[in-house]
Amino acid sequence: MRDGLQSIASIMPTADKRAWIDAAWSAGMRNIEVGSFVSPKLLPQLADTAELVSHARTLKGLQIAALVPNLKGAENAIAAGVHKLTVPVSMTEAHSQSNLRRSRAQVVADVGSIVTRCKQVAQAQRPLVEASLSMAFGCTQQGLVAQDEVMQISEQLVSLGVDQLRPADTVGYGNPAQLRQLLGAMRSAFGAARVSGVHLHNSRGQGLAMVVAALDIGIRSFDSSLGGLGGCPFAPGASGNIVTEDLVWMLDAMGFDTGIDLDLLLDVRKTIEKQLPKETLYGFLAGAGRPRTTPKP
Amino acid sequence: MRDGLQSIASIMPTADKRAWIDAAWSAGMRNIEVGSFVSPKLLPQLADTAELVSHARTLKGLQIAALVPNLKGAENAIAAGVHKLTVPVSMTEAHSQSNLRRSRAQVVADVGSIVTRCKQVAQAQRPLVEASLSMAFGCTQQGLVAQDEVMQISEQLVSLGVDQLRPADTVGYGNPAQLRQLLGAMRSAFGAARVSGVHLHNSRGQGLAMVVAALDIGIRSFDSSLGGLGGCPFAPGASGNIVTEDLVWMLDAMGFDTGIDLDLLLDVRKTIEKQLPKETLYGFLAGAGRPRTTPKP
Repeated sequence: MRDGLQSIASIMPTADKRAWIDAAWSAGMRNIEVGSFVSPKLLPQLADTAELVSHARTLKGLQIAALVPNLKGAENAIAAGVHKLTVPVSMTEAHSQSNLRRSRAQVVADVGSIVTRCKQVAQAQRPLVEASLSMAFGCTQQGLVAQDEVMQISEQLVSLGVDQLRPADTVGYGNPAQLRQLLGAMRSAFGAARVSGVHLHNSRGQGLAMVVAALDIGIRSFDSSLGGLGGCPFAPGASGNIVTEDLVWMLDAMGFDTGIDLDLLLDVRKTIEKQLPKETLYGFLAGAGRPRTTPKP
Repeated sequence: MRDGLQSIASIMPTADKRAWIDAAWSAGMRNIEVGSFVSPKLLPQLADTAELVSHARTLKGLQIAALVPNLKGAENAIAAGVHKLTVPVSMTEAHSQSNLRRSRAQVVADVGSIVTRCKQVAQAQRPLVEASLSMAFGCTQQGLVAQDEVMQISEQLVSLGVDQLRPADTVGYGNPAQLRQLLGAMRSAFGAARVSGVHLHNSRGQGLAMVVAALDIGIRSFDSSLGGLGGCPFAPGASGNIVTEDLVWMLDAMGFDTGIDLDLLLDVRKTIEKQLPKETLYGFLAGAGRPRTTPKP
């Protein structure tokens, strides 16, 4: 929800978001990034994140994540009862300055403060801290991003005590070979448990191809958004996150147990489509339908 | 060109098709299926195939393929000077009857006659015979297609002497795990040289994901169409063949030497877009553009 709703002009009412969380949970979703603890002035679309966390906590077995940009955001996220804090760390100085208005070094230091703060929370309530490695596959400002650069910042983040490192192909520059190389190296250096997921975009149609490459090296956790919501306003057709429905269909077909009911998930899509009439939804499965498995009568 | 142009309402003038072949060749394409030797009454869009073959033969190093549905078509293809005859063989009886109006057994027998006929051609001019295994990944009429079924018909085709077996995911039912299993088994049984390529559709967005799976087991030849031309009229957004531009971009990025100049290829797309204003072109790269590799000035 976070990456989808933050990128669109429409502001979804809190009641609709709550219903979305409920419906996704009923379809079998057990990990949802419900929002972001950034200033409501900056992202009014996500101003109700604390309320959503509170609601989501009533759903059994749901891991609730939220993005936090700094220590203040982390305080609010902890107060709300989030299970995982996702802190964006840009892999390039140029993007760090333009997106977060702080240097990479400052952001890395902030992550340290957030980890320290989380360690003060009683063990049972302590949230995981995940560093989202923005532009890890290439950057719209810097261009190529060397694997060494990602490894070095990752090392600093690990030494500060982050629980998870999640490389993000923020602008869809990545390719499957690069993914296998980067994530393979990261898993060797920092452990498979610490590098267990990846954040992919489908800007060049390569999203699911990268999923296949990631599956091959043992990655089992993928960020995606319903209907690819969020899109890419400056490149029509170049969708944002990989599309949840297409991803779930492919994983199911490949024999993975996603725990998600695809029909219920497609119902959620229909609801969101009605609630956000001005937004484009992406994806192929919703139009093409599921393959026939039995003979035509 | 064949799979794209046969599925659209527009009829492209022969001069435009010739220019397309020239431009694709200039961009580095060395394998083009220029058309189909079917009845012009059935497919008026492809009535000029013999003329296109004749023109394409002037381009150095180009392997010219054409679809042939039967012995008569093969005769015409041989007369025109085609390098590879692609004969569609449905993997299910239901699709064979509805698409080719003949039983699978009759079609397999036809392939035998075509192989025999080709063997009468002097060695230097003898075309390759490729069996395109329609619905090898599942069928809109029969539903699931057992791997055994594909293996059995493949065995018959090999014993008749076909040079190439090319499994086709005609309606985009396949998934990457299935591809690895089916093509792996076929390559073990019939040889990697005989099963060296695959025909993929992107109906559920899984086309490039299947390419990654195929690359992993050594497949290096992929059918695709420019802009995914051909689409899927009954499911808007569910494109037809995988998109050549997106495929070439991904392969390039992965470090494969495609021999294709992507910028020239994107120029070809622009031309086709102008020439076929009523048709939808698919793909992501054309909209999103190539990733930046150098810092922003």
